[in-house]
Amino acid sequence: MERKEVISLKVSIIGVTGYSGLELLRYLKHHPFVEVVSIHSHSMNKKSLEQHYPHVKQLTALPLEAVDPSKIMAVSELVLLATPSGISKELALPFIEADFPVIDLSGDFRLKTEGTYETWYGKKAAPLEAIHKFDYGLAEYRQEPKSKWIANPGCYATAAELSLAPLLKNHLIVLDSIVVDAKSGISGAGKGLSQATHFPESHDNMSLYKMNSHQHIPEIIQQLNAWSPELEAIQFSTSLIPVTRGIFLTAYAKVVQPISDEKLVELYQEEYKQAPFIRIQEVGSYPVLKQVIGSNYCDIGLAYNPKTKMITIVTVIDNLGKGAAGQAVQNLNIFAGFDEQCGLDILPIYP
Amino acid sequence: MERKEVISLKVSIIGVTGYSGLELLRYLKHHPFVEVVSIHSHSMNKKSLEQHYPHVKQLTALPLEAVDPSKIMAVSELVLLATPSGISKELALPFIEADFPVIDLSGDFRLKTEGTYETWYGKKAAPLEAIHKFDYGLAEYRQEPKSKWIANPGCYATAAELSLAPLLKNHLIVLDSIVVDAKSGISGAGKGLSQATHFPESHDNMSLYKMNSHQHIPEIIQQLNAWSPELEAIQFSTSLIPVTRGIFLTAYAKVVQPISDEKLVELYQEEYKQAPFIRIQEVGSYPVLKQVIGSNYCDIGLAYNPKTKMITIVTVIDNLGKGAAGQAVQNLNIFAGFDEQCGLDILPIYP
Amino acid sequence: MERKEVISLKVSIIGVTGYSGLELLRYLKHHPFVEVVSIHSHSMNKKSLEQHYPHVKQLTALPLEAVDPSKIMAVSELVLLATPSGISKELALPFIEADFPVIDLSGDFRLKTEGTYETWYGKKAAPLEAIHKFDYGLAEYRQEPKSKWIANPGCYATAAELSLAPLLKNHLIVLDSIVVDAKSGISGAGKGLSQATHFPESHDNMSLYKMNSHQHIPEIIQQLNAWSPELEAIQFSTSLIPVTRGIFLTAYAKVVQPISDEKLVELYQEEYKQAPFIRIQEVGSYPVLKQVIGSNYCDIGLAYNPKTKMITIVTVIDNLGKGAAGQAVQNLNIFAGFDEQCGLDILPIYP
Amino acid sequence: MERKEVISLKVSIIGVTGYSGLELLRYLKHHPFVEVVSIHSHSMNKKSLEQHYPHVKQLTALPLEAVDPSKIMAVSELVLLATPSGISKELALPFIEADFPVIDLSGDFRLKTEGTYETWYGKKAAPLEAIHKFDYGLAEYRQEPKSKWIANPGCYATAAELSLAPLLKNHLIVLDSIVVDAKSGISGAGKGLSQATHFPESHDNMSLYKMNSHQHIPEIIQQLNAWSPELEAIQFSTSLIPVTRGIFLTAYAKVVQPISDEKLVELYQEEYKQAPFIRIQEVGSYPVLKQVIGSNYCDIGLAYNPKTKMITIVTVIDNLGKGAAGQAVQNLNIFAGFDEQCGLDILPIYP
Repeated sequence: MERKEVISLKVSIIGVTGYSGLELLRYLKHHPFVEVVSIHSHSMNKKSLEQHYPHVKQLTALPLEAVDPSKIMAVSELVLLATPSGISKELALPFIEADFPVIDLSGDFRLKTEGTYETWYGKKAAPLEAIHKFDYGLAEYRQEPKSKWIANPGCYATAAELSLAPLLKNHLIVLDSIVVDAKSGISGAGKGLSQATHFPESHDNMSLYKMNSHQHIPEIIQQLNAWSPELEAIQFSTSLIPVTRGIFLTAYAKVVQPISDEKLVELYQEEYKQAPFIRIQEVGSYPVLKQVIGSNYCDIGLAYNPKTKMITIVTVIDNLGKGAAGQAVQNLNIFAGFDEQCGLDILPIYP
Repeated sequence: MERKEVISLKVSIIGVTGYSGLELLRYLKHHPFVEVVSIHSHSMNKKSLEQHYPHVKQLTALPLEAVDPSKIMAVSELVLLATPSGISKELALPFIEADFPVIDLSGDFRLKTEGTYETWYGKKAAPLEAIHKFDYGLAEYRQEPKSKWIANPGCYATAAELSLAPLLKNHLIVLDSIVVDAKSGISGAGKGLSQATHFPESHDNMSLYKMNSHQHIPEIIQQLNAWSPELEAIQFSTSLIPVTRGIFLTAYAKVVQPISDEKLVELYQEEYKQAPFIRIQEVGSYPVLKQVIGSNYCDIGLAYNPKTKMITIVTVIDNLGKGAAGQAVQNLNIFAGFDEQCGLDILPIYP
Repeated sequence: MERKEVISLKVSIIGVTGYSGLELLRYLKHHPFVEVVSIHSHSMNKKSLEQHYPHVKQLTALPLEAVDPSKIMAVSELVLLATPSGISKELALPFIEADFPVIDLSGDFRLKTEGTYETWYGKKAAPLEAIHKFDYGLAEYRQEPKSKWIANPGCYATAAELSLAPLLKNHLIVLDSIVVDAKSGISGAGKGLSQATHFPESHDNMSLYKMNSHQHIPEIIQQLNAWSPELEAIQFSTSLIPVTRGIFLTAYAKVVQPISDEKLVELYQEEYKQAPFIRIQEVGSYPVLKQVIGSNYCDIGLAYNPKTKMITIVTVIDNLGKGAAGQAVQNLNIFAGFDEQCGLDILPIYP
Repeated sequence: MERKEVISLKVSIIGVTGYSGLELLRYLKHHPFVEVVSIHSHSMNKKSLEQHYPHVKQLTALPLEAVDPSKIMAVSELVLLATPSGISKELALPFIEADFPVIDLSGDFRLKTEGTYETWYGKKAAPLEAIHKFDYGLAEYRQEPKSKWIANPGCYATAAELSLAPLLKNHLIVLDSIVVDAKSGISGAGKGLSQATHFPESHDNMSLYKMNSHQHIPEIIQQLNAWSPELEAIQFSTSLIPVTRGIFLTAYAKVVQPISDEKLVELYQEEYKQAPFIRIQEVGSYPVLKQVIGSNYCDIGLAYNPKTKMITIVTVIDNLGKGAAGQAVQNLNIFAGFDEQCGLDILPIYP
């Protein structure tokens, strides 16, 4: 196996003990050109990764280390921060100062307007200067020139933005009519314990949380404004469904003029024809959640209802895949000049 | 236990081997004034009910019989049809002709406008004359005089109608802005086998089905028109979530003028103050699916979003409870003059 | 409804905010002769029960109170302790001293041999004198005279003891050959949060815990010794399966001489012919977990394997029903002289 | 990516529309040296694979073809039969006659003693001569010389045999004391519809099926006899748990003389030190089901109970991985002379 010889990027993962961190490890294990050279946790490094997560036994020889930026920069060429919002903003700064590449999976470097982070996250933002160094990493829509600092989008935000982009770019819908009803698997809430994620309470259950106040709302609007500057608000709900992984997003919008299902599907196929991870379903066919689990795919189905003059968009992603680690690897590929699909051309796990 | 002496209604259940039929049996077992005197299946009467469903062992001594209307009318005072749409319309006719009370849980006698049933159900309707004999049994809104023939509403329809009634009756929303995103547990699909309900395909999954074509849409519009004759269409989606029971319905509508959360909750509390099974959540609180499972409750939470000028309504019911058997018992209570809560004042099963 | 007039027992529940406490409330709501007059929590009484558990809304007007034994004894005739092991032993003492009836659902008063509790529970036991006042409340096997203090059995223990009693009483099996492989739903772990009960870790998972060290082992042996004093040990494993409720127990034992399936089933039917909650399956039929959920039933299936000379016993109960609150109500009925089935003659919830 | 150049084996998959067939496709997509050149279904080839299973969209360009052995042999170097028992035996014959390599995942070529297949499978066996050409493909224990025809073991059989091998080879246990209590995810029942796999009946449920009659019993005994010819029977139960994938097997056996946990773990570590897919847990640690899902790992935990003189073995595999497609790829690697881990060195999907 000559694969080892062509490896050209050494990376470190901070926050490897979180669900997105573990998933980064899983994807990068497949990656032909990336080597994970160190793994880190800011809070759980007293035991080995295998002691926390026996599924990795024999699959990584790396010790679980505390976070020491200079040590990381000595062995690595890029760092992935799979740490929670509020933690990343502290951890990232030494790397930024040292001009060292960072892909951050948290919300800390996404919101570009002063004050927005404070309002929606309820805590102090990273320095605005640092925030502006970061590209918003919606991989299908990144602009040139690309930064070496990438703020990987939120899971809900990724699904919502990819769902609405073609409609907004083509001015097909009434801007104040957008309703997004998004459902997430419970891994989206992370590994922190809570009553809402306690099995006897979450199993066989469904709940809407953060009514009109989810922190991905301003992130979505910021990105939608890139296509429709006059859009002011969207109705956006987030619910938990009893699955471990996945986002099932249903979006609705009034059209400015009638359209056929065929035209609609064609429009999306055209928009995403260069995007290997966006799979547009045929007319009359809608994706089910399971068809993307374990992968970086974002599958989209579309229908127009002539009676209500509304479009329905059904979009599914794996919240830990395209919604986190998968898109981070995609962004890493773009950064390193690898084929976008490197390490990601795997089959979803089904059934 | 003197309870037996006051029993005043003998009933028969046809279609007892379906999920709604079993649930009727469960509720009526609790009922102090009703006795189930015979149980019937048009297709599964070769074995006993216990052989099909061991959970009933020792709990019913009744044999599982074929359907013979004259025998039923000889022993019983009311018949409950828990049979599928398309079957009920055949089975009900002899009872109607004999002026014998019927509560039908199927969709066969709900749609009053000629041609609608054919369009949405794709099969021949019951005779229009028979259909018009039936009350539409949305229990909280039944009018006097009440018929002895009751078409029990659909599960989605019940949740949607109870969610929207106060807004429409008070002219608070823009009629063509209504979006209903409804999710159902898989028992809603009945006991018939299909790939979509095969455990390895439905578990950990979510899917939208019957896009813009669910047969409850005309039923909902028919009832909403009782409050808003000018309403023409609603955007209505139905998805399956991996739970056995329950409907979690999220509805959205633009207001004609701003309203506060407090006013909204007050309005619903006022509307439903005589309705023991409708429980309006406090401001800022939204129901979770599990809090109604096993019961006849319909719990509703409300929020107004000043940024989008939209109201969000979160409504939960047990599809086999308030969405089927529970409401049927409630309608039976109304018919017989019992307290509406008889046999239904039970705690949901939690967790 | 004259039912109110015949109510003859007023009870209080301590620990109503736990899963067994809630289930007591659910069963007693059905009970024709019991009135719950006060509900208590030693740790969660700052909010109302409805604020903790919205499913009880409108179903109980009782305030959630702190624990004050003299106040309880002033209004009530019996107290149910649905508190955890270690807590009950403190709370029960004032009631015992005042000669006031107690049904305790914890493990604190079950183990009669000095030192056993300390060894298996890892904490200090209740005073031995108090422990000896308590009947071990395996309802089907309680002896006369009956005490007013009842230690309700553990969930696993109930299932194991009812499974093995007929074999041991009839000396049919080799005593050192017993293997019990018991699986429990996750509500068995209570409402306390842990990584093992965090949805993303417990869903789609199964795990064996407390290998050879579950605290129900000495309880089971103590009771089995009532039938087979020479029995010394059983191989007993406990695993978690991803369901909320239920125990599915599979037991194995070598026979001392061959037996037919028919004889085996007959033996159990005979043993339990007076026990309304024990339902023995026909030859060749084995219970599924779901057929007892929400109820006090214990369903048992049996098979003899001539190749291995072993009997297999398949037993299912609802851990919160026959394994906790259901059996507590059954014990209450025995205590009060009510029919054993009062409040418990309900259908399991299916599907 | 030069990987394509070193590909050295072209294979075809028959039965790709079954769950094991899909999983073969998933594993082989990762494999650096194997190319799937054609995919076949004997019953579902009217539509494309993507139409049946949208998760494969864009991931395979291969048409779904009927089964034509000569066409397959013209393009391919090995055929994988992921077809059900009873079908494989027909499909394999032309390949065997043409001296063409076959890996069969069904039970049709595993049982070497005349009459055994008929007894346990209830249908006619393949010709005995054909059966004897096949190696039983328990990968860790295959003998030299290796055949080009491989009967891949059953899922339960794999877990049971790997669990018991070290004990039997070292004569540590009483042969007639073995009890195996095995639980399987529902994908083990395949994609055929049945009431037992209908979501509302299987979710939140557990059931024991094929009491003392599972067709893997003779397969296990045949292999155990290779290590202990005098072993005659094992007590073996199979239950369904509500997860999609995975086998959780708990085995029990009496020791011939006491042993420590340390010795036990050491013994297994020694036995499997050359087996990269068998991961022995540390003393006091037991595998959970989820830690192997999506992979070819078989994780084993061990405990000795001095009170009962029994060993408990806890073993987990993915029934579609090590229990089917994963082990088939491992056998393919052995056949082709690739490193055993090729295409299989992937992380289980967690959580």
